[in-house]
Amino acid sequence: MRIPRNLLAAFRSEDTFLMAVHIDPDGDAIGSALALSSALESMGKKTFIFSRDPVPKYYRFLPGHDKFSTRIKEIRKKDPVLVLVDCNTPARAAIDGYSFRKSLVIDHHETERDFGDIRWIDHKAAATGVMIFHLLKTLRTAFTKEIAMNLYTAIAVDTGTFRYSNTTSDVLRVSGELVAMGADPNLVAVNLYESWEYKRFRLLVMALNTLEVRNRIAMIHVTQDMFRETRTSAEDTEHFSNFPRMIGSIKMAVLLRELDNWQWKASLRSRGGLNVARIAEKFGGGGHENAAGFKITADLKVVRELLFKAVGSSKK
Amino acid sequence: MRIPRNLLAAFRSEDTFLMAVHIDPDGDAIGSALALSSALESMGKKTFIFSRDPVPKYYRFLPGHDKFSTRIKEIRKKDPVLVLVDCNTPARAAIDGYSFRKSLVIDHHETERDFGDIRWIDHKAAATGVMIFHLLKTLRTAFTKEIAMNLYTAIAVDTGTFRYSNTTSDVLRVSGELVAMGADPNLVAVNLYESWEYKRFRLLVMALNTLEVRNRIAMIHVTQDMFRETRTSAEDTEHFSNFPRMIGSIKMAVLLRELDNWQWKASLRSRGGLNVARIAEKFGGGGHENAAGFKITADLKVVRELLFKAVGSSKK
Repeated sequence: MRIPRNLLAAFRSEDTFLMAVHIDPDGDAIGSALALSSALESMGKKTFIFSRDPVPKYYRFLPGHDKFSTRIKEIRKKDPVLVLVDCNTPARAAIDGYSFRKSLVIDHHETERDFGDIRWIDHKAAATGVMIFHLLKTLRTAFTKEIAMNLYTAIAVDTGTFRYSNTTSDVLRVSGELVAMGADPNLVAVNLYESWEYKRFRLLVMALNTLEVRNRIAMIHVTQDMFRETRTSAEDTEHFSNFPRMIGSIKMAVLLRELDNWQWKASLRSRGGLNVARIAEKFGGGGHENAAGFKITADLKVVRELLFKAVGSSKK
Repeated sequence: MRIPRNLLAAFRSEDTFLMAVHIDPDGDAIGSALALSSALESMGKKTFIFSRDPVPKYYRFLPGHDKFSTRIKEIRKKDPVLVLVDCNTPARAAIDGYSFRKSLVIDHHETERDFGDIRWIDHKAAATGVMIFHLLKTLRTAFTKEIAMNLYTAIAVDTGTFRYSNTTSDVLRVSGELVAMGADPNLVAVNLYESWEYKRFRLLVMALNTLEVRNRIAMIHVTQDMFRETRTSAEDTEHFSNFPRMIGSIKMAVLLRELDNWQWKASLRSRGGLNVARIAEKFGGGGHENAAGFKITADLKVVRELLFKAVGSSKK
């Protein structure tokens, strides 16, 4: 992993940093920002972490998660160097409109535009957490148990705990080192996958009851009535589309979520043989080859029929 | 990992080996036996693999899975050295009654009795696959892609793909090496977790609809009627109890499976704070601290009530 020398120099010479993560931050964004912040503080630097959105409840087991702040104006007064973490434009971090004397970018996502004075973007990295690991190794900062937990979680989230195709030998070796440094794989897994609220589980069962499999598509939906009955909300449907994806004979899993009367959000997940971004584009949406989505205003039955018929005409 | 020197000597000096795995073999038993067999054959040895039960369908993606044989009598005539793999008594491998001129044991399970001329039992090993990895490294045999896939799968199965508390830094480092040697983490995960038959998924949804949560116990059941309606059988309920275990507020998940009219098999899974073996023992069953079971003949309602009341009086 080649880290830009001027990036290393900036971390060594500057004194005050603001880490900013993307909107709706995930485990990779949160863990990476927390680990980088702790490491820089151990070097005697002052750091702040900004997120427009609060840390989701299921990531509040991460050490230091209360360091996140939304007070961008106050932080701005300290004249920090900006570090975009796990994103690469100010808009993705909801800080467009603010200027900083120096901007650094550390990310593994598709580049949206050429923002930043020093950019380290590695599309091949499985997680920003892997990049931060190598950065801290090169900076020779101390790895505490807290840093190890944050980086391990960052990597676990973005690799589906070592199940996705981005799980390289380096990913596993780095994770092994992080465990040696104090990360607890079982604690991470329990927090990520086995800490569901009962009401969320009830919502899942309701959604699974709507399952229909046709034309190699598995489709489930969640209505506003179901949210009301279970006292849940949209964030509780996270990962629901992974369940019908377990069926080996299908090409695509679909979760339809009712946003409002007649308005639906469709999440499409491929099992690898189908480019679902192409299907989403037909409906004015977009995304990646294996995960895409769109919004549509129509009767549920109509939406379902349209989707069941959309695959035949779409190839990878 | 300290490997007995006489074990290494036996593998070097003997020519014909019979690997035998335990009844109802799992991924660790199957992958470990296949990897050891391939490695010994690359050393010019003749090998056989015995399993009383067929390789379960969801492990038939493993390279070489068709090497398993049930023809113990014919194999016996070749006068092989016996190697018990992932078990430590002939009874566990269903080969009691046959004698061998030399017996080796490689296992990480609790020792049942002192069987074997050379015993290598490491309770701390997360999987027999980890032991075989270190054995082959020491024997300096070639690691093919097939061996890497088999050992990676063995380790993945016994660590819940790196989610259980036996996931040590060594486990992750070894797995990283196996990926570098050609194991494919995504292919393994897809085969283990995302290749469900639709009928099995339907059975799961039916089971989840029976969910009741009370007294910090989450209970589901599967009846003979459900098996008939979905054309499934007992082996399809494997891992069902993991689903209610996802609920963070519970202490124990229970799966009740109807064996016959009025006869039920209960599988108890703890979330860590409760010794479920103690509960199973009350009903004449047994098991481990985190996973135990028993059989009971009674009306379903009665069984459920007994279990819902069994926890209050049982502490770890």
